[in-house]
Amino acid sequence: MQARQIHLIRRPKGVPVAEDFKIVSVDLADPQAGEVEVEALLLSVDPYMRPRLNADQALHEAMLGTGIGRIVKSRDPAVPEGTLVRHAAGMRERFLSAGNAVRILRPDPALPLSVYMHALGGTGLTAYGGLLKIGALQEGEQVVVSTAGGAVGSVAVQIAKIRQCHVVGITGSDGKLAWLLEQAGIDAAINYRTQDLSAALAAVTPKGIDVYFENVGGAHLDASLPRMNVNGRIPLCGMISTYNGAGEGVNNLSEMIYRRVRMQGFVSTDFASLSDQFVEDMTAWLKAGQIKYQETVIPGFESTPEALIGLFSGRNSGKMLVSVCN
Amino acid sequence: MQARQIHLIRRPKGVPVAEDFKIVSVDLADPQAGEVEVEALLLSVDPYMRPRLNADQALHEAMLGTGIGRIVKSRDPAVPEGTLVRHAAGMRERFLSAGNAVRILRPDPALPLSVYMHALGGTGLTAYGGLLKIGALQEGEQVVVSTAGGAVGSVAVQIAKIRQCHVVGITGSDGKLAWLLEQAGIDAAINYRTQDLSAALAAVTPKGIDVYFENVGGAHLDASLPRMNVNGRIPLCGMISTYNGAGEGVNNLSEMIYRRVRMQGFVSTDFASLSDQFVEDMTAWLKAGQIKYQETVIPGFESTPEALIGLFSGRNSGKMLVSVCN
Repeated sequence: MQARQIHLIRRPKGVPVAEDFKIVSVDLADPQAGEVEVEALLLSVDPYMRPRLNADQALHEAMLGTGIGRIVKSRDPAVPEGTLVRHAAGMRERFLSAGNAVRILRPDPALPLSVYMHALGGTGLTAYGGLLKIGALQEGEQVVVSTAGGAVGSVAVQIAKIRQCHVVGITGSDGKLAWLLEQAGIDAAINYRTQDLSAALAAVTPKGIDVYFENVGGAHLDASLPRMNVNGRIPLCGMISTYNGAGEGVNNLSEMIYRRVRMQGFVSTDFASLSDQFVEDMTAWLKAGQIKYQETVIPGFESTPEALIGLFSGRNSGKMLVSVCN
Repeated sequence: MQARQIHLIRRPKGVPVAEDFKIVSVDLADPQAGEVEVEALLLSVDPYMRPRLNADQALHEAMLGTGIGRIVKSRDPAVPEGTLVRHAAGMRERFLSAGNAVRILRPDPALPLSVYMHALGGTGLTAYGGLLKIGALQEGEQVVVSTAGGAVGSVAVQIAKIRQCHVVGITGSDGKLAWLLEQAGIDAAINYRTQDLSAALAAVTPKGIDVYFENVGGAHLDASLPRMNVNGRIPLCGMISTYNGAGEGVNNLSEMIYRRVRMQGFVSTDFASLSDQFVEDMTAWLKAGQIKYQETVIPGFESTPEALIGLFSGRNSGKMLVSVCN
């Protein structure tokens, strides 16, 4: 039988376009001993993928990526047919895998499966570990989050609220701004496309900033640095402003010196040791309605490139997902 | 009697010029009970002063600064006449001070007094704490130091060598480069004015960079970031490239994310708890010849502005000092 994959066929210049990708059908053999066949249910598209399109993503091979799938054929007794699994096998509609290369997912029946792709998935863990471990967030601190309407940011602002912090979110649309204020319940929000970011940030951070959760870089970082308090922290989660080559230089780094600011890069795989505590906390918060979420679900495996491209124009509210209906 | 002070009389634009400063004579009363009169022996001029000229340095008052002086009149029995002291009273030829506002200095007789202004002073402690505490330097790591021929950098490279590291220094003159290789004994040196910094740095850091000790910012930081190893550290000591307003934007900060780089600002006063260990280590290293130094001593109190200005054209080799001959 044949199965589809999304291939990168050329390195994007700037914002990726549809022509950078191609849907390719490949033959799919039957699983051998120890192997399983997985069908994709949900696929993730994320900003972190962009820099890799010009780096370690191989041309003419399946795009990197993670998702949730279901075992449809199994020759590994540990992973029987019907099992739900997490995988990092990339953008494939169906694929063979070693049984021990997928992770069994036992979702809480009170929660929709899709939350395991965001609040209870990699983006949720990124927000949790980035804020609490790298950011060393303390109760009641002053917090600013960029791309606060995105998959990571929208969780980060709500964790900070649960920790009794004063929370400001920066976003790029009035719709996201309204969601942040009304649903996520943060203290102030800024639309950087319609407001002067530096002036607006100064107005809503009268006690400065203890933790600036950074997803953007460039002018966002320059606006935040002069507001940082002594011993402030900047967990460096992403720099979406630079991913498509339109990088703005950062001019205010010297503000870090006297303020003793610590800026630190991280990725969610650094937080494996937090994983059990994260799942326990986040499941409880979701069930209690303390963490709300938005998701933008694009249907159809063939829509995956379009979903990825849409990230860079802010098409998503919350986590961007592709649902694969088999 | 009258005593001279150096005043800032206008905010510099770009590199400070002589006309930004004025030598002013003021009346000096006799010390009251609990007070001492101090005559300056050595004064420090340092890059950190530059940003403060446009910030907290008051106009028409004595310039901030630290130095070593001698008590010439005392009405504080704890600090008798003849005592050598450290002070932070700024650029004053003679001045009154509370006796408990100066710190008694008991120099090792085997060492020249001037080392207490650099290797055994604030710049030495800056290098020591910045590298060992903020940089969390480990034996045998890969180290790069910017302004390696300066007061802080020249100590930092040698501490890293004592810790068995592979050490690269970046400097702006062939004279300093020769000193670093021949006297300080580092592994490689780069003259950023005559070499392509990125290419040269790549060539001499085959194992990447674990600790980049940063004094410059701008293009220096952009060249170093892509060479950082995973879990690398960037102690942020200074950003001399930006101090005179000619700031170059930094474009490569996104390199910090996957490399999990930690960049952290600090000032030497953060290291009070290291002070005893520092004095013990540094005294031993100096006596053993393991730490060599250069100093550029400009004679005459009235030369202080010229000495400060000279820092920004690289006039100094090692620590820039003013000696006041009374």
